[in-house]
Amino acid sequence: MNEGTETFRSYPIDRVGKSGVKADVDRVTVEEPLEIRVGGQTLAVTMRTPGHDFELAAGFLVAEGVVSRAEEILRIEHCREVRSPEEEGNVVIVRTSAPAAGALDRARRLTLTTSSCGLCGKGSIEAVRGSFPRIPDGVALDPAVLAALPDRLRREQAAFRETGGLHAAGIFSLTGEPKVVREDVGRHNAVDKAIGALFLSGEVPLRESVLLVSGRASFEIVQKALAAGIPIVAAVSAPSSLAVDLARDSGMTLVGFLRGLQFNVYSGADRLGSSSAPRGPEETTRGALPRE
Amino acid sequence: MNEGTETFRSYPIDRVGKSGVKADVDRVTVEEPLEIRVGGQTLAVTMRTPGHDFELAAGFLVAEGVVSRAEEILRIEHCREVRSPEEEGNVVIVRTSAPAAGALDRARRLTLTTSSCGLCGKGSIEAVRGSFPRIPDGVALDPAVLAALPDRLRREQAAFRETGGLHAAGIFSLTGEPKVVREDVGRHNAVDKAIGALFLSGEVPLRESVLLVSGRASFEIVQKALAAGIPIVAAVSAPSSLAVDLARDSGMTLVGFLRGLQFNVYSGADRLGSSSAPRGPEETTRGALPRE
Repeated sequence: MNEGTETFRSYPIDRVGKSGVKADVDRVTVEEPLEIRVGGQTLAVTMRTPGHDFELAAGFLVAEGVVSRAEEILRIEHCREVRSPEEEGNVVIVRTSAPAAGALDRARRLTLTTSSCGLCGKGSIEAVRGSFPRIPDGVALDPAVLAALPDRLRREQAAFRETGGLHAAGIFSLTGEPKVVREDVGRHNAVDKAIGALFLSGEVPLRESVLLVSGRASFEIVQKALAAGIPIVAAVSAPSSLAVDLARDSGMTLVGFLRGLQFNVYSGADRLGSSSAPRGPEETTRGALPRE
Repeated sequence: MNEGTETFRSYPIDRVGKSGVKADVDRVTVEEPLEIRVGGQTLAVTMRTPGHDFELAAGFLVAEGVVSRAEEILRIEHCREVRSPEEEGNVVIVRTSAPAAGALDRARRLTLTTSSCGLCGKGSIEAVRGSFPRIPDGVALDPAVLAALPDRLRREQAAFRETGGLHAAGIFSLTGEPKVVREDVGRHNAVDKAIGALFLSGEVPLRESVLLVSGRASFEIVQKALAAGIPIVAAVSAPSSLAVDLARDSGMTLVGFLRGLQFNVYSGADRLGSSSAPRGPEETTRGALPRE
């Protein structure tokens, strides 16, 4: 469909396992914003994996009730007059026939918003980074503490008599004590609730803490952590490309596929003392893992 | 935090297993829209599980860069002057201190939109239902065909050389043939891409088809299927309360926890010939499962 799009992108990572740390490469799902413009106006910006963008725009317009028959879409194309190189391929322009106008207004009015970001790729990272200070260096987390967090999150969920049917987000101290655990049908909401709880009690910025999410780490999860000053984000499942990009650009530690003492470090490995880069012996203390 | 909120709601279901169909009750995660108003305007509407709404609003404002210190939030309260009974408890009003104004404008401008819906609970269902015709009765699906769909979806994903790291959506014929399979980092996008592909080739409304999603069935998934006229939606994981409500209200069949010949039917069981309601012997033909 869209030529030249990529679904996966390779990143250098530190793969931590029982036998130590290994420099490796991981394929990460690409996440980039797509802006859908109809009638000269932005109807939606959605974080998506590039590819099949015209289908995505068409399907979105069907769901919004803007179009109901294929003929009502006169033309779909990628915007050629982009405002920055990063927007290239990330803006789709749809021309619809006249009857769509009323439905369009309604769609705009009813469009559901979930979260923040600028527009395209690196541009959105700069927009987000411009608003929030970079995470300062320092803060160390014992990998053994990190490894125990998923079990701790599950225990806290059980304590609230909630089930695994919800997304969970927990914010922990560097010694692994839970500060707050929240659940929600939407994973971004779980993170907002956890950060919001500590914000309302005056604990933000959360300089000495770890955010653990039960699912994947998207751009928005990392962005929310950055806004709250959280230096370390860990996810039980995979991160997206834009999540990795933002974590690297912000000086944040990002861990994915956290399953006990096995996990991938996508950014900021030095906070875990697990960097595969050469280092002196003094840096392998504090629970750091042996190198392979 | 919010008193009287419920995280789960019980629904009567048909539980289909190897030994037949059993009428049962399932606890479903509650999903309802929350509108966050700041400075007299709607900043966001998010689909959330009720509870900890003030924290959710605060965390959202932190992520948007609207506030950075607890003192900047002067007051958070549920709106008392709601426009309909369904909005009760689903609108949060935040008063912030003056410096927030500039950040607010930026947040509004950058707010990321994902999808459609009206405002609150039943109100949003009516708004959605008003736009799209009810799914007509009729159309039958052999439970054996349904049971085979998840494997088929995974095979199609493999054929595209993509991995399980992405959300997948597939639209199948009533005999289990895939019409289209799409993947995306966002599950709503995967559904939009699948529906959009068939829309662009003139195949919408998709009267004789099944939508299968690899994860959960949210309100938005069911809403997108309704917009495309799809009579049967199946999810490998759990549905939300609002997804079940909309499916029931729209005459749609909704299946959750589809794992081979074990699944839950939340709505429209008659299309699977698996209703636990009393029926004549002629209705148990066409691959219908024996009753317990």
